[in-house]
Amino acid sequence: MRIARFSTTNDDPRYGIVDDDELVVLSGDPMFSGFGTTGERVALADAKLLAPVIPRSKVVCVGMNYAAHKAELHADTPNNPLIFLKPNTAVIGPGDTIQIPPVDGRIVHEGELAIVIGKIAKLVSAANWADYVFGYTIANDISARDVMFADGQWARAKGYDTFCPLGPWIETELDPGDLEIQTYVDGEPRRHGNTSDMLYKIPEIIEFASSVWTLLPGDVICTGTPAGLGGFTDGQTVDITITGIGTLSNPARNRA
Amino acid sequence: MRIARFSTTNDDPRYGIVDDDELVVLSGDPMFSGFGTTGERVALADAKLLAPVIPRSKVVCVGMNYAAHKAELHADTPNNPLIFLKPNTAVIGPGDTIQIPPVDGRIVHEGELAIVIGKIAKLVSAANWADYVFGYTIANDISARDVMFADGQWARAKGYDTFCPLGPWIETELDPGDLEIQTYVDGEPRRHGNTSDMLYKIPEIIEFASSVWTLLPGDVICTGTPAGLGGFTDGQTVDITITGIGTLSNPARNRA
Repeated sequence: MRIARFSTTNDDPRYGIVDDDELVVLSGDPMFSGFGTTGERVALADAKLLAPVIPRSKVVCVGMNYAAHKAELHADTPNNPLIFLKPNTAVIGPGDTIQIPPVDGRIVHEGELAIVIGKIAKLVSAANWADYVFGYTIANDISARDVMFADGQWARAKGYDTFCPLGPWIETELDPGDLEIQTYVDGEPRRHGNTSDMLYKIPEIIEFASSVWTLLPGDVICTGTPAGLGGFTDGQTVDITITGIGTLSNPARNRA
Repeated sequence: MRIARFSTTNDDPRYGIVDDDELVVLSGDPMFSGFGTTGERVALADAKLLAPVIPRSKVVCVGMNYAAHKAELHADTPNNPLIFLKPNTAVIGPGDTIQIPPVDGRIVHEGELAIVIGKIAKLVSAANWADYVFGYTIANDISARDVMFADGQWARAKGYDTFCPLGPWIETELDPGDLEIQTYVDGEPRRHGNTSDMLYKIPEIIEFASSVWTLLPGDVICTGTPAGLGGFTDGQTVDITITGIGTLSNPARNRA
């Protein structure tokens, strides 16, 4: 089932189930209030899809979670998943514009499978991981490379407003273990990988992250990017496609 | 004016103005709905003070913002405020227990002046900084030292549940430029400093942070810790006193 967050002209964001070319409108936020329907249907063509969730708390990212990406960065990593944070103010939706800030160096895309948490998760064991997952979406963990190195800490380089596109919707029925992730810039293939190559798998990631901080419904975990570093600039469009979910597409512009 | 967030037996959190030994109960969240009063007063003795705010988005911290602290860490820093994030799930209130996780190495206290943001702040110029401040409180930027070094990134080491005590209330009328910050463990003085020694002052911090990410009402900025690294362990209590605000006190226990 695909769950989209959307608005039509001038109304507040709502949730809907994607049913071919229509949205079956839900009565609330399905991460909190289940899947009650309103009886209303909205044509997809009349809806502006929004980020499928704005986390109440955090976007957790896992760094260096693919061997090929780790190798290209010559990175040392700890003996555990390397987790860091992006703020919820960085989240934008499908089609929204990535605003490139006036900083030195390349701005790079990182196409990633993102987990959307469905219930409060604290000290979850890996065996029970699936109980805490609401579904999956696509994330672009955008990073200002030179800022990462200048600061040492990545919070700023990866936390700028618009640096966390999410979407286009949440797929609730998906086996995340063997999905192709393909990134394109202006239609040209860039990063490519498969979720089967993750160093830490989703059950371990949920166990580890929930041993550090409580995960709330709507929190998002970005599971890391495969190899193939690449930048994008003003006027280009970044598309990320993941098997079974769809394509997240965002144009980029220099910030005014 | 001192604004506290509190609960009494079994009720939802409310806000109140501290008036001697009473709280003048407000009708909503003053960061969003102003200072309307309900006519009700609650004795401070009957109230449990809570974290004065749970940020909707983020706790921003400024690292290495006192020369003496930077020197004791032999730290290189970028040519800008070094900003990083703690998640809102780390926030606890005055008197709440710091839960020490089962990790290697010392757990250290960092007593800091915290700014509470009062309105949406994006690309704010330093000259206008004061328009965006709701008030000030005390923060303890608790850190697991060895985890900081093992991960390189500080999000985990500083982001564990309970690692961001805030309180005891928000002081809305305060000149933040010359305040003594004193930390005690079991009554014994530890870190000590004065906000006049900040390397980046509050106007610059707000300008810089709001050029990276939008700050929302209720977001918190911890302005850095003075010198005097020190740990604490199971059974000890950490007190932080700042002139003009008061004392934030939290006991610590090993996590079960």
